[in-house]
Amino acid sequence: MKALQYARTNRHWFLGELQEFLTIPSISTQPQHKADMKRAATWLRDKLLAAGFPRAEVVPTAGYPVVYAQWLAAAPTAPTVLIYGHYDVQPPEPLEEWRTPPFEPTIIGDDLFARGASDDKGQMYTYVKAIEAFKETVGHPPINVKCIFEGEEEVGSPSLEPFIREHAGLLAADVAVASDTHILDKDRPSIVYAVRGLAFVEVEVIGPDHDLHSGIFGGAVHNPIHALSAMIARLHDENGRVAIPGFYDRVRELDPEERAEMARIPFDREVWLREAGVQTDWGEQGYTILERRTARPTLDVNGMWGGYIQDGTKTVLPSKAYAKISMRLVPDQKPAEIADLLAAYLTAIAPPTVRVRVRSLHGGEGAIIRRDSPAMKAAFRAYTQSFGQEPIFVREGGSIPVVATFQKVLGLETILMGFGLPDDRLHSPNEKLHLPNFYRGIETVIHFMTFLGEQ
Amino acid sequence: MKALQYARTNRHWFLGELQEFLTIPSISTQPQHKADMKRAATWLRDKLLAAGFPRAEVVPTAGYPVVYAQWLAAAPTAPTVLIYGHYDVQPPEPLEEWRTPPFEPTIIGDDLFARGASDDKGQMYTYVKAIEAFKETVGHPPINVKCIFEGEEEVGSPSLEPFIREHAGLLAADVAVASDTHILDKDRPSIVYAVRGLAFVEVEVIGPDHDLHSGIFGGAVHNPIHALSAMIARLHDENGRVAIPGFYDRVRELDPEERAEMARIPFDREVWLREAGVQTDWGEQGYTILERRTARPTLDVNGMWGGYIQDGTKTVLPSKAYAKISMRLVPDQKPAEIADLLAAYLTAIAPPTVRVRVRSLHGGEGAIIRRDSPAMKAAFRAYTQSFGQEPIFVREGGSIPVVATFQKVLGLETILMGFGLPDDRLHSPNEKLHLPNFYRGIETVIHFMTFLGEQ
Repeated sequence: MKALQYARTNRHWFLGELQEFLTIPSISTQPQHKADMKRAATWLRDKLLAAGFPRAEVVPTAGYPVVYAQWLAAAPTAPTVLIYGHYDVQPPEPLEEWRTPPFEPTIIGDDLFARGASDDKGQMYTYVKAIEAFKETVGHPPINVKCIFEGEEEVGSPSLEPFIREHAGLLAADVAVASDTHILDKDRPSIVYAVRGLAFVEVEVIGPDHDLHSGIFGGAVHNPIHALSAMIARLHDENGRVAIPGFYDRVRELDPEERAEMARIPFDREVWLREAGVQTDWGEQGYTILERRTARPTLDVNGMWGGYIQDGTKTVLPSKAYAKISMRLVPDQKPAEIADLLAAYLTAIAPPTVRVRVRSLHGGEGAIIRRDSPAMKAAFRAYTQSFGQEPIFVREGGSIPVVATFQKVLGLETILMGFGLPDDRLHSPNEKLHLPNFYRGIETVIHFMTFLGEQ
Repeated sequence: MKALQYARTNRHWFLGELQEFLTIPSISTQPQHKADMKRAATWLRDKLLAAGFPRAEVVPTAGYPVVYAQWLAAAPTAPTVLIYGHYDVQPPEPLEEWRTPPFEPTIIGDDLFARGASDDKGQMYTYVKAIEAFKETVGHPPINVKCIFEGEEEVGSPSLEPFIREHAGLLAADVAVASDTHILDKDRPSIVYAVRGLAFVEVEVIGPDHDLHSGIFGGAVHNPIHALSAMIARLHDENGRVAIPGFYDRVRELDPEERAEMARIPFDREVWLREAGVQTDWGEQGYTILERRTARPTLDVNGMWGGYIQDGTKTVLPSKAYAKISMRLVPDQKPAEIADLLAAYLTAIAPPTVRVRVRSLHGGEGAIIRRDSPAMKAAFRAYTQSFGQEPIFVREGGSIPVVATFQKVLGLETILMGFGLPDDRLHSPNEKLHLPNFYRGIETVIHFMTFLGEQ
């Protein structure tokens, strides 16, 4: 196939462009990178135009812009695919743990190290280059394509759903596709058919109305760090279950068939422990590691602070203590409801010596995707072709709220065609993309579009 | 008395000098203020020379220098007093809570607002000005005086004991005196006869060996923030007692007479709650607020942090979580022993999913001072004279480790002749010195030296 041949011949150029993309610190959660966000969006639009899209634009939203593009050159009977990706990245902190600078993409062996290499710039860019391959060989892609690349995925996509609602007609398609997940191993492809939702809250515990000297007031005034610690200690019970009353009420339980299927997924506990960097696992009793981290809801304190946290010592009894808490949700848990349950629980268990404020930061629902649709079958064949092995169906522990949003607003199912690897260190120092996966990803997209066009 | 008259006439000049002293950000715990520390020491030496001391020098130590001065002009039979103070101050953070800049001393009404105004620059400076008053009126102070002003009080005085040991001969005296405490109320003087000790440790809890994505690993890897929170929650029992095994073993219990005496100290719970900025008190059951915060040992987490603590959200499962913990000790608890007990307890209660490191940062012993010595009697009369009311004997909740050090190394009792007020906000934003106390402090020192010289 000519497009495949083109993609193989031009790998070097594709890599160079991706490296350029990765030098832009498009960190959506840090306001000081506003200009970089704009730069990333413009860069991406230009590359879409260069790849052949007759229409590509940076569309403003209430937050960071969406890059929208479309190319409807296939037969009117050909299906239309809506491609989703995000050009924003996680903050790189802690900086001192990076072996190479996060925004100076560095190739070591077969890996490209940079913040965003795998999540999601590298994966998203496979589509741009696959389409360029069609343009340069057969003139246009074999299906109709629309792209929606957002800049707020790492902050919970506050502007995405309003954008989709406003442009529902423009975005009409037969199926959506996104590559923001990983496969099981570099030679063992997999397709994610379920993602978890997310509810993110910030908790403020207020003790005395100003910082106090711990020598003068300690022992007679309740320290809000102690109070918050005790509250956090009660978020899980002794069996690793989340202790918030009502938390599990709506959870769709795994049926025996799916548990049996999951048990057949290759899983090497020792390898997993090494990847996680721990001696032993932890979590909800009665479920396997894989079930816990993909099919069960969880709660993590992502950040906590209070008092004097710089070098040296300060004998302060602080006025306030804080925690950022995220909960991963499964169908049919509702983010807003879960955030409310947490707030009610924290308020209920707070001692009378402190006040508690809980602020909901963002949320998104989980989703389960059908495994027998035409698009899913095309994806299955595409992986089989490019990786030489049939993909395995798996659940994903992370959150891709756009899946639920596409379902709800546009009635679209999303095919999650990931090209990352489990050890890509997403959100961590030394994030990387395995380059053979980048190239195979481009080929998988070419196959996918080809198979979908033939159906 | 001429010296008194001189002190009254020159108040305005004394205040101007103190304001100049307070503009120097001599923050011993922050390395970036090294030059300011030196500047503060030199400034102080120059003022001692100007006040008449024939000998005053900045003496290097392994850490920040000691300012030493002596004036032995009284009769050889006259007693020698060793005056202690410290020229370093606490960090001003959180800066946004200061109503006036911490190092731009600002007078509002009768109060002087600045970091260090009360702790300890303002209190220490009363001695310099009292001695200047003797010099300018009768030629020299009525007793022999030596000054030891250190620059590391706020970081646990690591260089002080070595300095005192090395210069024990030079520092020989009959009694020591220090003003680094507060009186009960502006018109109700008091003398502190007991101080608490301190043991300060830093705790590091290590989970996975690198930061993880909480969506991918959450629920299967134990979060070190959860582990540390649960450990902190177990540092106190449900009765507000410190739960570390052995913590109370050496505690010298209050006898019924002293408890009865303490119960007679004027204490308005409502006023105290207002000062603390809380709705209700907290702490060890079976003891009054005053007993808890002065005569009982306590534990406070002074700082805690882990994970993402900047603006926005980051769904990280962090590798590490930290806490800074201080314990206030009473006679006869030993700081090193108590730090070890805490380390052993934390290690024992840590779950097998994390590792714990405890590092001892500094410590100092508590002390109880005799109330019937000649110097204590002179102090009692001096307060009575300058405040028009007899002072009340009280215990102090804070730590003045130098009291134990002077006792141990030089065999000296220390008279704690404080001039601060309970609402001076030591270690907090908006620290202040009540100016009438500054002036009465100078007069109290003049009386104290006069009475001591007459004995």
